[in-house]
Amino acid sequence: MFSDRFDQLVQALRILPSVGPKSAQRMALHLMMKNRDGAVQLAHALHEAANYIHACQVCHSLTEHDICDICQSKERNAQLLCVVESPADVLAIEQSGSFNGRYHVLGGHLSPLDGIGPDEIGIPHLLQRLAEEPIEEVILATNATVEGQATAHYLQEAAKHLAVRMTRIAQGVPQGGELEYVDSHTLSQAVHNRMQMK
Amino acid sequence: MFSDRFDQLVQALRILPSVGPKSAQRMALHLMMKNRDGAVQLAHALHEAANYIHACQVCHSLTEHDICDICQSKERNAQLLCVVESPADVLAIEQSGSFNGRYHVLGGHLSPLDGIGPDEIGIPHLLQRLAEEPIEEVILATNATVEGQATAHYLQEAAKHLAVRMTRIAQGVPQGGELEYVDSHTLSQAVHNRMQMK
Ligand SMILES: [Zn+2]
Ligand SMILES: [Zn+2]
Repeated sequence: MFSDRFDQLVQALRILPSVGPKSAQRMALHLMMKNRDGAVQLAHALHEAANYIHACQVCHSLTEHDICDICQSKERNAQLLCVVESPADVLAIEQSGSFNGRYHVLGGHLSPLDGIGPDEIGIPHLLQRLAEEPIEEVILATNATVEGQATAHYLQEAAKHLAVRMTRIAQGVPQGGELEYVDSHTLSQAVHNRMQMK
Repeated sequence: MFSDRFDQLVQALRILPSVGPKSAQRMALHLMMKNRDGAVQLAHALHEAANYIHACQVCHSLTEHDICDICQSKERNAQLLCVVESPADVLAIEQSGSFNGRYHVLGGHLSPLDGIGPDEIGIPHLLQRLAEEPIEEVILATNATVEGQATAHYLQEAAKHLAVRMTRIAQGVPQGGELEYVDSHTLSQAVHNRMQMK
């Protein structure tokens, strides 16, 4: 609107998730009027990230090195491996502070109709890790979606011949969830998988 | 979290208006996992915008040139000048399609307590334009806030000696506004400034 470069900036901001035309315009105006240094810093950070961040050779999470900090850490329990669909899931679990093992990021889930089979999500590499590393338990933490469940079941079968305990993260009513607002599929699963009070 | 550069990207994204830590993290993950080309494009657009976009010498709106497209256009009515607080207001009025004159951007409003007086918002320059250009009507389109109103009143007084008609954008109930949801100050103004049915 003001100039081609302004329009190009608005357009470029729209690649960000959940940024529509109005927000992109507001962001561009904010940067141009109130925070040009911030705009330059953001440009720099984007460049650096795009050039230096890539997949860890071991777990396929994100890192700047060949092998990520978690895979390299001596503090983490090497006997425990958590399998997730994406680096976002690694972040979520790390931020929950509930896990001290290592990860394996599949980079997606099985989706035969889209041509995504075991090879596309690196299941051979995962099975190789299970055979070579001193892993005793695999926590299947794929999403609680139809595809995530199917992927977990596939992995359970594929690893059956290995001396590894396979577990699945619990599914049920979320903490603070009020029953009247929980969907009935979740609720029926939660009743079915009810646990002994301790 | 994954790496220093990832954290720096998350931090840099937080300069964007209404982007909190969670959204910034989601944006960084999206860019790294799904749209690296977009990240590079956005970096480029930010750089270009920060380097080439500046204030128009005539109206102080944003432009890549010395004088902006609107000030240069022969299609715009040079007798009509709309005074606004910011380039965002220029965009809003342009997008309403309701105005074919030119603009003058103050870059703020009078705020004596913050040391912002007439000089700080370029009122001498505006008065100079009114004296030199063939302007017949000035539409005061500062915000309908206390400061915007005060700024409009100040301008009206300051331009009194000039042969220029001063008008103020109408204030009242917004289109589609349901009376029960309109604040009472707006409503009392709307009753007070009621207009003859045509
Ligand atoms: Zn790793
Ligand atoms: Zn201009």
